[in-house]
Amino acid sequence: MLLNAQRFLDLARSVNVDALIATSPENVTYASGYWALSQWIRRGPQTYVVLLAPDLAASHLIAATSLLDLLADQDVWVENIHRFGQFAAERNGTLTDELDLAQAGYYDLPAQETAIQALIEVIASAGLSKATIAVDELGLLPGHWEMLESRFPRAIFIPGSQLFRSIRAIKTGPEVDRLRQVAQITERSIAAALEIAEAGASELDLARAFHSQTVKEDALPVLGCIGFGSRSAMPNVQPSATPLADDQVIRFDVGGRYRHYRADIARIAFFGEPDLKTRQYHEALNAGVQVALEAIRPGVRAADVFNAGVDMVRRDGIPHYRRHHIGHGIGIDGYDLPDISAHSPDVFEEGMVLCVETPFYELGWCGLQVEDMVVVRADGVETLMTTDGKLEVVS
Amino acid sequence: MLLNAQRFLDLARSVNVDALIATSPENVTYASGYWALSQWIRRGPQTYVVLLAPDLAASHLIAATSLLDLLADQDVWVENIHRFGQFAAERNGTLTDELDLAQAGYYDLPAQETAIQALIEVIASAGLSKATIAVDELGLLPGHWEMLESRFPRAIFIPGSQLFRSIRAIKTGPEVDRLRQVAQITERSIAAALEIAEAGASELDLARAFHSQTVKEDALPVLGCIGFGSRSAMPNVQPSATPLADDQVIRFDVGGRYRHYRADIARIAFFGEPDLKTRQYHEALNAGVQVALEAIRPGVRAADVFNAGVDMVRRDGIPHYRRHHIGHGIGIDGYDLPDISAHSPDVFEEGMVLCVETPFYELGWCGLQVEDMVVVRADGVETLMTTDGKLEVVS
Repeated sequence: MLLNAQRFLDLARSVNVDALIATSPENVTYASGYWALSQWIRRGPQTYVVLLAPDLAASHLIAATSLLDLLADQDVWVENIHRFGQFAAERNGTLTDELDLAQAGYYDLPAQETAIQALIEVIASAGLSKATIAVDELGLLPGHWEMLESRFPRAIFIPGSQLFRSIRAIKTGPEVDRLRQVAQITERSIAAALEIAEAGASELDLARAFHSQTVKEDALPVLGCIGFGSRSAMPNVQPSATPLADDQVIRFDVGGRYRHYRADIARIAFFGEPDLKTRQYHEALNAGVQVALEAIRPGVRAADVFNAGVDMVRRDGIPHYRRHHIGHGIGIDGYDLPDISAHSPDVFEEGMVLCVETPFYELGWCGLQVEDMVVVRADGVETLMTTDGKLEVVS
Repeated sequence: MLLNAQRFLDLARSVNVDALIATSPENVTYASGYWALSQWIRRGPQTYVVLLAPDLAASHLIAATSLLDLLADQDVWVENIHRFGQFAAERNGTLTDELDLAQAGYYDLPAQETAIQALIEVIASAGLSKATIAVDELGLLPGHWEMLESRFPRAIFIPGSQLFRSIRAIKTGPEVDRLRQVAQITERSIAAALEIAEAGASELDLARAFHSQTVKEDALPVLGCIGFGSRSAMPNVQPSATPLADDQVIRFDVGGRYRHYRADIARIAFFGEPDLKTRQYHEALNAGVQVALEAIRPGVRAADVFNAGVDMVRRDGIPHYRRHHIGHGIGIDGYDLPDISAHSPDVFEEGMVLCVETPFYELGWCGLQVEDMVVVRADGVETLMTTDGKLEVVS
């Protein structure tokens, strides 16, 4: 299961929450394993998971009838399924195939008209009318919160997205496996892009090569910032028809999504012979990442690591280096806890997966950046990468 | 501009709205041309466009400082830019490049701390304190609506997402161009997938070929339902390792995103010699789409077209055919107006872009579906497709 069940139970007990309701796509998939297509590609479609504490096994999932096929075909651990809305599907005589039978079984459940009606029904029937319920506020539609409060005046509803972030911060084994895979798919996609780097090749050419490798490995393109020369100073540079010229930086800040899990890594290549400033600045940035990675272990404060990383960059070559954070967690969402910044209250824990990065953007010159993904272990970090962040020279 | 400016002004006047605020990614990009990466790939990051009526040219855009680079690099028509949040970027001496100068100019604007503070400031300074303001409710964070109401007690706030849907229903020229391109990229992606269809090739193999073609043409994978045989009866079938066998249907319900615009088309191939039932059912479904397409023209009721299409499928080979809709609009969102269903209040208008479809799912057998994209013109529909929906035999 993707969900860190023990952490959910521990945190639910410590904040006195009886139920935690997932509403946004990331939290629905994380909580249950269920990937409900429509809510991932549009705003509006509703899917809910009602996690119960302490009786987690009794949790509930509420899905649109039109998406029940995916429930039958996916690895979802929640057993109490509820549906809403209608959808027409016929049956060819007596079904024998397990998948068909599972799907038909879901279609045969009684249906509520809307998602929020189904949720209200579940809250009532699960005995939560007087419970303390944390609701992930990011995926609810406007008015839904008020409907819940007015229908259950004796329940206490509190925002739940921060609780989900706290739970998600410590990854389970299956999550780390996916994150390792997507990190390395992304590294191979960078390599595929650099393979076609030559004078005249455009940012778009490299992006096509990058994304082609990503989809070849069953991941989906998400983050694809690839820029040359002065365009690389744009933090979110989107590939253009600009051609590669001699003595230009190629900056990648990129990452796909593999089995719903995100990558976010950065690498710098130089087309030609790198000048002294590029070398020095890049080395300083890479040293900052290395110092930060060496400092990270369970119990260490994120703010201390931020200071160590920034100080190193300043000492090692960019005295005026400024940065609001030098890293963040990553998982099914691109920005998980912890936040590695100057005033972060976060403390590293075993099982966190981090992006550690020291980007530097100079308008009129270029952008440089090293960003690695690592998992926090008992005695330090274990890298999820197969490459290092050294400046790669291509010609 | 993507925005249908005249329709915005007409509808704003007819419902007495002084301003319409975009908050969800689709509406922000549609309203302004601005694609603010973070809000497209995560839930939570805020970007706003405040469209003013009747003085549209005086409209406002509110962006995170960390995303101002994209504003400088994209074709955005809104001129009043406001920023919130901090982001560190250095400058290399005196800038001369236009892109660098634009970006630096944005960084030099005064900043509010948060998006909602910036929005409040814009509402106040634009003289909207007593105005009627429609706010796209899909992208706001919980609590924001209440903050606006309490800060501007004399303004009237109404939900705006339906108003956006009404405006978006009639496409502008640049929108139709993008929709045609993404429809045809999707057709070529289907062709690329069918090129590798052979006994033993898996759904995932076809999906890889499909998405590879999509990214090669600078589109991004979004909808990728590809299923064989009885798996094709799953409406949202996600590609698996299941191998293709003789006498199986291959169902595609697919479409990428090109320059932010969506495709959603369906085609059926048969691996081997199609049996009579498959032929008859598929012909009936295709005939339903054709009859619907012939019936569509400005002024015709969507419900009438629904009935004509469903009746044709029933008469032509599937007497028990049931379906909740046989099509919908498409644009920057996958489900735009109109809704082609039995009780739809919608009437076709010139400039609508439609997906017209007659899916049929039979558990234990297969799924069949024809779905075309067309634009409504003065005298009927113009197809955006280069292929027809006939059953394609592969072997």
